[in-house]
Amino acid sequence: MRERKIILSEKDMPKKWYNIQADMPNPMQPPLHPGTKKPAGPEDLSPIFPMALIEQEMSKERWIDIPEEVLDIYSLWRPSPLHRAYNLEKALGTPAKIYYKQEGVSPAGSHKPNTAVAQAYYNKQEGIKRLSTETGAGQWGCSLALACNYFDMDCTVYMVKVSYKQKPYRRSLMEVWGANVHASPTDTTKSGRDVLEKTPDSLGSLGIAISEAVEDAAGKKDTNYSLGSVLNHVMLHQSIIGLECKEQLKMVDQYPDYVIGCCGGGSNFAGISFPFIHDKIRDDKQVRCIGIEPLACPSLTKGSFTYDIGDAAGFTPLMMMYTLGHDFMPPGIHAGGLRYHGQSPLVSQLHHDGLIEARAVGQEGVFEAALTFARTEGILPAPETAHAIKGAIDVALECKEAGEEKTILFNLSGHGHFDLTAYDDYLAGKIKDVEYPQELIDESIASLEKIS
Amino acid sequence: MRERKIILSEKDMPKKWYNIQADMPNPMQPPLHPGTKKPAGPEDLSPIFPMALIEQEMSKERWIDIPEEVLDIYSLWRPSPLHRAYNLEKALGTPAKIYYKQEGVSPAGSHKPNTAVAQAYYNKQEGIKRLSTETGAGQWGCSLALACNYFDMDCTVYMVKVSYKQKPYRRSLMEVWGANVHASPTDTTKSGRDVLEKTPDSLGSLGIAISEAVEDAAGKKDTNYSLGSVLNHVMLHQSIIGLECKEQLKMVDQYPDYVIGCCGGGSNFAGISFPFIHDKIRDDKQVRCIGIEPLACPSLTKGSFTYDIGDAAGFTPLMMMYTLGHDFMPPGIHAGGLRYHGQSPLVSQLHHDGLIEARAVGQEGVFEAALTFARTEGILPAPETAHAIKGAIDVALECKEAGEEKTILFNLSGHGHFDLTAYDDYLAGKIKDVEYPQELIDESIASLEKIS
Repeated sequence: MRERKIILSEKDMPKKWYNIQADMPNPMQPPLHPGTKKPAGPEDLSPIFPMALIEQEMSKERWIDIPEEVLDIYSLWRPSPLHRAYNLEKALGTPAKIYYKQEGVSPAGSHKPNTAVAQAYYNKQEGIKRLSTETGAGQWGCSLALACNYFDMDCTVYMVKVSYKQKPYRRSLMEVWGANVHASPTDTTKSGRDVLEKTPDSLGSLGIAISEAVEDAAGKKDTNYSLGSVLNHVMLHQSIIGLECKEQLKMVDQYPDYVIGCCGGGSNFAGISFPFIHDKIRDDKQVRCIGIEPLACPSLTKGSFTYDIGDAAGFTPLMMMYTLGHDFMPPGIHAGGLRYHGQSPLVSQLHHDGLIEARAVGQEGVFEAALTFARTEGILPAPETAHAIKGAIDVALECKEAGEEKTILFNLSGHGHFDLTAYDDYLAGKIKDVEYPQELIDESIASLEKIS
Repeated sequence: MRERKIILSEKDMPKKWYNIQADMPNPMQPPLHPGTKKPAGPEDLSPIFPMALIEQEMSKERWIDIPEEVLDIYSLWRPSPLHRAYNLEKALGTPAKIYYKQEGVSPAGSHKPNTAVAQAYYNKQEGIKRLSTETGAGQWGCSLALACNYFDMDCTVYMVKVSYKQKPYRRSLMEVWGANVHASPTDTTKSGRDVLEKTPDSLGSLGIAISEAVEDAAGKKDTNYSLGSVLNHVMLHQSIIGLECKEQLKMVDQYPDYVIGCCGGGSNFAGISFPFIHDKIRDDKQVRCIGIEPLACPSLTKGSFTYDIGDAAGFTPLMMMYTLGHDFMPPGIHAGGLRYHGQSPLVSQLHHDGLIEARAVGQEGVFEAALTFARTEGILPAPETAHAIKGAIDVALECKEAGEEKTILFNLSGHGHFDLTAYDDYLAGKIKDVEYPQELIDESIASLEKIS
């Protein structure tokens, strides 16, 4: 009987993360202080991040040890299985081999705990007793709640009010793991009160929630802030995904021609692809790494590579990245995790240097792909994840057209158990492609201050 | 580094189910026709079940081959991991070793697909094009929807109306896999119309839904009915759980002193324990198998071992089982899967013969155990499953008291991703122990017709 799952044993789990900064052909542009516009140093970040993470943010070391305590928690669900998608291949009639990495097996249901656990660990090491963060749909908040639970730290989550009301299940899950969850805007921060004063009925936004979480952390000695995507150290921690894939594919004598992930802030795509980009840069491997983003929020395919702030309020450093402009308001698609105006600086630089590709896809095709996947491989994917599935299916069909037996690897970054309202809408014919008008993107980008 | 997960490879997955009817010290009492009260034969069951399942229902063969096609679908998620609960052990301070079998990794989120896939397969083999069934909270309906999807069969699910309204996520999941889901009572069956005529606002019950599903199947040549628990062939299919556990424990040189499962209709408890009861009967192994049931619905601990019907309407054969009486209306606890008046005839006979034990536990302790588990092992359990956790924790604390290094195995039968309302209620202090008054149980049992 053919085997569907490739399982790496716990003792073979990677013991180091891969840092792509060691191998990039062009150096990263430094982050800039939002006030002075001068390169931001460790001292600018230390009020809200621990020194270990600031060092990782700027490190050029290729391999960074994963602490024993982090490995121990990873081993609750890692190494995650790699699946050969025999059923999907058959349904598509493609000669391509399709593999997917099952990151939905973590207790929080996605790849996010890979960095949450590491961040909680380093903060704990430096005496921090509480982490604050923001969350939109709740994937990240759940992951940090889980991680803080393991290190016996308090966790405060500012959850965008509209999600707090519409996605009570994710809020409950955070509370099960002991987090304090607030509907943002709150009246406990200045940023929150400012919003409520102007708009008492505000349903919140990720930008407001970030401002509240940063403000909560900035003033307090025992509290730090934690971010689930975008930053370099987050991409570093996620590299365990691709490192495991390499070992697992080796077990079946395969090497991917394509590595595919959905792309919002960039962390799951970076996680699966960076270890392969290592081979592309250093060993000239002919692997194509493709980030899939929504047509509704197309930062890589339609954004501009320039300096922009990471939040709406301007608390974060300016970062060099593909951005749609921080005033860009993406339409309300179901893939909330991909509704971000900018792209991780690392992913952006690699895209700028031609080492990765990007494609934008519409919502209808994404949900059609999700349904095809659920009905062949069984697993219900998150709407974000379904973008990667759509990308993989498109490539597999191109292989069919060309009669090519390529090997495709994609990241099944999370399950959709908390996203069934989106599937309801799709089955009821309510989901349509949303493309963002180019002139509004141009306008938002044009409003950015030119620096560099 | 110690390993938390014991993984059996796909090629080592058991190829035969274990049929405990081959080894029982006392033979099963036959099912009786509800009208004539004479032993029911294959011809009484053939209008709604395929012959292969009827044969399995009555078979005395010890080992029954799992068809290749069923193994192939099992391999999408099986063998399921066996976890050593190091974190839970540490939190309890127990010298006992605790292992749990992770059945929540199936696409439907529980052990139920183990029998759903087998049932769909045998029906398909005999030319059946559609299966009808009932579902309460939706676990079983999802599993049969998934199974029918794989064999390209239609699936009609009568979902208790109150759940249809309160648990829309499970309904959506069934629809994602292509099932037709109706809020029961419907106006498409006579049973449904009879109810609606008397009670137009009826919120339904499992009894009514069973009647509708059976009626839908009974009259049609290409449609059969499918049941997710109670019957002998269901217990047979679930035996793969315990068979895998035996192999996995062998890999770490362990044998359980205790095997624990929650007990409603009996299928997940039977699945994990019957292969060990085999050893107890044939090799005199000193293993204690304990079924955990809710105080609110204590069929094994407070019911009577007698003939009773399986549904409320009297369509099913009379079966010899521990029952609270088919008129018994269990209080509305969150563990909907354990709210059944009777117990599987196989589990009942084994309990009557002293080969298994039973304990009843209250809801508060169950949710406290669930939270302890979620905060140590990470995984959020279903409320039903949390009964097994409570049972395992109690035994582990008894071991601590006695200073005994026993080995405990329990079945983590399903995740609780669709049950977060229950956790909300617990965290808000709204969940209290519900014990059913003995006199009402006595009354319900006394009303049963005496046969035997």
